Amino acid sequence: MVKINDHYLKLKAGYLFPEIARRVNTFAEAHPDAQIIRLGIGDVTEPLPQACRDAMIQAVQEMGDRDKFKGYGPEQGYGWLREKIAQQDFQARGCDLDASEIFISDGSKCDTGNILDIFGKDNIIAVTDPVYPVYVDTNVMAGHTGEANERGEYEGLVYLPVTAENDFTATLPTQKVDLIYLCFPNNPTGATATKAHLQDWINYAKANGSIIFFDAAYEAFITDPSLPHSIYEIEGAKDCAIEFRSFSKNAGFTGTRCALTVVPKTLTAKAADGSTVELWKLWNRRQSTKFNGVSYIVQRGAEAVYSPQGQAEVQALVNFYLENAQIIREQLTSAGLAVYGGINAPYVWVKTPQGLSSWQFFDQLLETVNVVGTPGSGFGAAGEGYFRISAFNSRANVEEAMQRITGKFKV
Amino acid sequence: MVKINDHYLKLKAGYLFPEIARRVNTFAEAHPDAQIIRLGIGDVTEPLPQACRDAMIQAVQEMGDRDKFKGYGPEQGYGWLREKIAQQDFQARGCDLDASEIFISDGSKCDTGNILDIFGKDNIIAVTDPVYPVYVDTNVMAGHTGEANERGEYEGLVYLPVTAENDFTATLPTQKVDLIYLCFPNNPTGATATKAHLQDWINYAKANGSIIFFDAAYEAFITDPSLPHSIYEIEGAKDCAIEFRSFSKNAGFTGTRCALTVVPKTLTAKAADGSTVELWKLWNRRQSTKFNGVSYIVQRGAEAVYSPQGQAEVQALVNFYLENAQIIREQLTSAGLAVYGGINAPYVWVKTPQGLSSWQFFDQLLETVNVVGTPGSGFGAAGEGYFRISAFNSRANVEEAMQRITGKFKV
Repeated sequence: MVKINDHYLKLKAGYLFPEIARRVNTFAEAHPDAQIIRLGIGDVTEPLPQACRDAMIQAVQEMGDRDKFKGYGPEQGYGWLREKIAQQDFQARGCDLDASEIFISDGSKCDTGNILDIFGKDNIIAVTDPVYPVYVDTNVMAGHTGEANERGEYEGLVYLPVTAENDFTATLPTQKVDLIYLCFPNNPTGATATKAHLQDWINYAKANGSIIFFDAAYEAFITDPSLPHSIYEIEGAKDCAIEFRSFSKNAGFTGTRCALTVVPKTLTAKAADGSTVELWKLWNRRQSTKFNGVSYIVQRGAEAVYSPQGQAEVQALVNFYLENAQIIREQLTSAGLAVYGGINAPYVWVKTPQGLSSWQFFDQLLETVNVVGTPGSGFGAAGEGYFRISAFNSRANVEEAMQRITGKFKV
Repeated sequence: MVKINDHYLKLKAGYLFPEIARRVNTFAEAHPDAQIIRLGIGDVTEPLPQACRDAMIQAVQEMGDRDKFKGYGPEQGYGWLREKIAQQDFQARGCDLDASEIFISDGSKCDTGNILDIFGKDNIIAVTDPVYPVYVDTNVMAGHTGEANERGEYEGLVYLPVTAENDFTATLPTQKVDLIYLCFPNNPTGATATKAHLQDWINYAKANGSIIFFDAAYEAFITDPSLPHSIYEIEGAKDCAIEFRSFSKNAGFTGTRCALTVVPKTLTAKAADGSTVELWKLWNRRQSTKFNGVSYIVQRGAEAVYSPQGQAEVQALVNFYLENAQIIREQLTSAGLAVYGGINAPYVWVKTPQGLSSWQFFDQLLETVNVVGTPGSGFGAAGEGYFRISAFNSRANVEEAMQRITGKFKV
């Protein structure tokens, strides 16, 4: 008789975003005339840059020409894309990385889950609280945790609270941990990390032989020139960090699908016999065996992000969403709500008013003003009493949503 | 100190196709004037159907229109694509499957590896020999095997030899196994399975509580109307089989990337406490958490495969490659070589001449006539002494390659 992976049974309810979708769909079916504004999932809304579209149309046309047709590409991505990323995203910021250390993939969500494949089962894993739920759920699925307690915290994971008290930057763990997930600019709080803060983490990682999984999906939203975009801008990161990046939020690729993961060749970990193994080789083998590369057409679209036209269009998109974030901040602040983030990030992290729980506030917003956000508690126990509002929407929708919320919840 | 997944260290050398690429590149660098013809990896060469290209260009253009722009899609794929697949690939053949049981993905290689995520570690796993290497390697990575012996066989796996003696169809195991990988039309041998043969497998699976992973990536190449295209054409398969399909080989999507996996809702397995769990729910959770769906643009391209124009263009592509296969069969047979497959499949399985080993024949073909094939031993110990020739190339290249081979190896 076939046995399932029992660890799946430890997962609490649905993954956060499908649960939100379920509640919204139920409400929408019962109220077909409601004009629902979605500031929940953090999905982009504005058109794909012209440069990317032009490049993809050309790529589709090449697929109709036998001499230019592309079959299987390199599982790691095409060299021309990896080179541009290495140069413009990393070398231009002083990061000593090579194109061969860049792996193109179809999504950061996939990669932050898949990366666990190459690690052993007995590493101690630290996540922030609140946290992007995929980091936790994929560890549960991989059998790296015990059961969840009544607060939704899994036995065996080390939770690092991220609160207003520590400016929403994780405090270094007091115990020894092996794998650490960090995300800056942060999802969900919109907080950022200074170079000094990341240097502390790298010092910790090097002292303890740890590896940092650094999720930089929102780096394009950094406006403060003193803040690092990549962890590799910090001394020593090449020896202790894997970085995840995405075209989803800068170039609007959430439905087009392209991302990248950086695994420096200097990164090592230990085999059971005590020998040292290069993680690049393991990830390369993993990707060669379990992945077939990203669509040629999509990779050409991603490449266009690095053209002068693409760079200008991406910057315009980022600026547009940041202006939305500023409107959200200003409106909610003027209504007396406490807000965080939204300056170097597309997310505004709001303290729920009137002592409401996160899901109570979610339900009230949905039912009374038809606005969808994300309950902070969905990101972890320490997110209770907070609420994430995404700046990804049209200007008109953001303004309308703020008018509705402030009209109802002025404190 | 971070520990790696030690199971990776059990993997033998490189994955087969990167190893072939390495040898070919080495030869090409040393002989820059050699006109190498590649009949190795089984990658398509002919242009993408016009219907698919037109649909993708329209999809790219929609991405430039705010009202038609698509962000995150359903992780499982868009309903309009799943519906067409359910109707035309399955219901039209009498398979009682629903669109919700179809999961769209970016590749069958990915899915045949990822599917192991939802199963426990203590299942007994059977593969044919020879076999598509991904089935084996992903089990090694997942820790389902011991070390490999000198024949490259991993301890703990059950190997089912597939040879000329049993017409290249796997004989039922004499022991009890839980998970069974079958691939028909077969990669690498080009053999097919009759309905009666698959019925035997289903009877075995139902009697033993086993699940069959049925890889139907080459079903479009079936010309014999008595042969089943899907395992769900066979009574009882919905209770014991997961089917993998791809747009790679029918519509030429190897570089465009789209595939699908069928997980019937009737399929169950056991939890450690003896309770019965629906596998659909686990796979749905796995995909929701670790995957973000296939590019909208690519899904529109896949949908076009089901239009009348798309169907006609796909059939023309399949016919073209099958004619190549026929030429390969005829030429090699006339030269005195023993050949199998290539009638309902794009692969011809050749007995190596003059008692050469598979890799000896590979090297001789590469070095003397500059033709690349795939050594049978790369697919498993029982593939030693065989060689796979792919029909995926231009007519001129196939004819030229056959002329070169028969001129050199006439027996």
